[in-house]
Amino acid sequence: MTPSFGFACTDASAPMKPWSFERRDLRDDDVRIEITHCGVCHSDIHQARNDWGWATYPLVPGHEIVGRVAEVGSKVSSFKVGDKVGVGCMVDSCQDCPSCAEGLEQYCEKGMTQTYADKDKRDGLPTYGGYSDQIVVTEKFVLRMPDKLDLAAAAPLLCAGITTYSPLKHVGLAKGHKLAVVGLGGLGHMAIKFGVAMGAEVTLFTRSKSKEAEARALGCTDVIYSTDEAAMQAAAGRFDFILDTVPVPHDLNPYVATLKRDGTHIIVGVIGPLDPPLSGANLIIGRKSVIGSLIGGIAETQEMLDFCAEHGITCDIEMIKMADINEAFDRTVKGDVHYRFVIDMASLAETKQAA
Amino acid sequence: MTPSFGFACTDASAPMKPWSFERRDLRDDDVRIEITHCGVCHSDIHQARNDWGWATYPLVPGHEIVGRVAEVGSKVSSFKVGDKVGVGCMVDSCQDCPSCAEGLEQYCEKGMTQTYADKDKRDGLPTYGGYSDQIVVTEKFVLRMPDKLDLAAAAPLLCAGITTYSPLKHVGLAKGHKLAVVGLGGLGHMAIKFGVAMGAEVTLFTRSKSKEAEARALGCTDVIYSTDEAAMQAAAGRFDFILDTVPVPHDLNPYVATLKRDGTHIIVGVIGPLDPPLSGANLIIGRKSVIGSLIGGIAETQEMLDFCAEHGITCDIEMIKMADINEAFDRTVKGDVHYRFVIDMASLAETKQAA
Repeated sequence: MTPSFGFACTDASAPMKPWSFERRDLRDDDVRIEITHCGVCHSDIHQARNDWGWATYPLVPGHEIVGRVAEVGSKVSSFKVGDKVGVGCMVDSCQDCPSCAEGLEQYCEKGMTQTYADKDKRDGLPTYGGYSDQIVVTEKFVLRMPDKLDLAAAAPLLCAGITTYSPLKHVGLAKGHKLAVVGLGGLGHMAIKFGVAMGAEVTLFTRSKSKEAEARALGCTDVIYSTDEAAMQAAAGRFDFILDTVPVPHDLNPYVATLKRDGTHIIVGVIGPLDPPLSGANLIIGRKSVIGSLIGGIAETQEMLDFCAEHGITCDIEMIKMADINEAFDRTVKGDVHYRFVIDMASLAETKQAA
Repeated sequence: MTPSFGFACTDASAPMKPWSFERRDLRDDDVRIEITHCGVCHSDIHQARNDWGWATYPLVPGHEIVGRVAEVGSKVSSFKVGDKVGVGCMVDSCQDCPSCAEGLEQYCEKGMTQTYADKDKRDGLPTYGGYSDQIVVTEKFVLRMPDKLDLAAAAPLLCAGITTYSPLKHVGLAKGHKLAVVGLGGLGHMAIKFGVAMGAEVTLFTRSKSKEAEARALGCTDVIYSTDEAAMQAAAGRFDFILDTVPVPHDLNPYVATLKRDGTHIIVGVIGPLDPPLSGANLIIGRKSVIGSLIGGIAETQEMLDFCAEHGITCDIEMIKMADINEAFDRTVKGDVHYRFVIDMASLAETKQAA
């Protein structure tokens, strides 16, 4: 085992604090990554606070990880020391089921191994995420970071990026389509960038009048205030697709009404009930659908990173120090971030000296 | 105007009674049909009792209409006197919007004209359905009934048939797929027949143990009792498609759990809320979708009738006399029908003599 250092919380109400732990010794197919940056995803907070009920402690969050290869196992062929690499929400899967065979490891029928708060399939040890100095990951789940991308600004692509890219590709978003994005946060701002890059005409639905200028700067041609009933009614039957990034239960019906016939409302954020309930008539009249989507497979994540390099897409981030993580959590919960906090892992050393 | 005779109700609590009214004179593109049979759809009862709030009275129900052409307008080219024809849920649409242009008149963006309890687009007069001796319908909304099909048993194809055929074709049901049908009624038994004819392996979900033999006789290879939690759990991840014919709010979550990754739960019956609410996680994990579907377009309805002729498919019906309609309504509400009542319109004359 190799000593590792990071930030963890010890229970659902504890703050994030410095923590020393160990990473496994390299297996033949393992890559050790020296982490340079890690994004702060809203789900890190949900997990730290055990909002979903399956957290395990001590919990080291972080699944938007970028860095450089520090060491490779004897059978690793795709990476060498010094390579710029990334790790997202998964670090393993069964590699044997139909979903894995199709490159859809996120839907692994035996369950993917999550980057943190999960158990390694081979040794049963807990997984710890990217709020730390290093991580050891099997080669198949390591992504190559294109040289063109700024590592810090690319970190959130590993979750916020793929979560929005994958469903837009899945539904076949293309030039001429009208896409609406619900919510302008970490996911929403990426959805707008991808929608524009794929050639769609993109509209933002938001509750906040303050977001209009930001949305237009990101490439939206229109902004609709979801609290303005007249504006919502005027948008009836307008969109081919809606990408709904809202992470809490909300009423989908007013949005579904703005879909064209055969339109699709994509959810990527709501884990809980779609409450208030969807109206059956709203789906039946117009043959509309609601579909869910979970991150993306490894091959598609690589494709997304390459797409970002080609189109010059990264996340808009606010860089923070590791020591500021508790404040960053609070500000993320309030939506007070443009649009993603990214931890500069060089700052971890300062906390080690303090610890 | 031409005198017509049928059965109507005068308000939401009134029984169906004999009623004399008028049909419009033939326009150039109209076909007058002498009705021989009319199916009794559950929505006839919903409308008669104003369950959906948009009924107009007097209300003559009936949108599973078959008969013979009695007279044609001067510009009618597709039909001649004596032809066996049918009329379903629509008698007109704008013929001008993108949906109409694609042959999806049921999703007409200006609103299709329903066969009854609606207003004719040209003269503004109320539409009256098929519980009557005749109907006058614009040529474009008249279907040709294949000679091979028994007219009485084919009548419910015009609603129950197309409502289940269209979504199965839309999602691309084919040999090798596993299809589950929820509910064994007028729609459910047609869904099973179509599923089998399209080459799928069909399973019935039902709450009623008494339905197993019937389901197997219709071609189901399996029957799962939706109240048997162990059986439901054993079916996790099994189906490509679910066709849910239940017409009242119910919990979709246990069914969605039996879908494979990328599986689709089709609703055709629930007009009201999907309550209890769908779980977002149930859609997100496995990229599953819920889609609605409304009857089918005119060209697809003709395709469905021809498919039925080719595959020897009709509905299983119980023939009734017009005078027995109130009892038939009560029995339909109780689910006490195998699987569709069809009115023998020759019996209407008896009620005329009595009236």
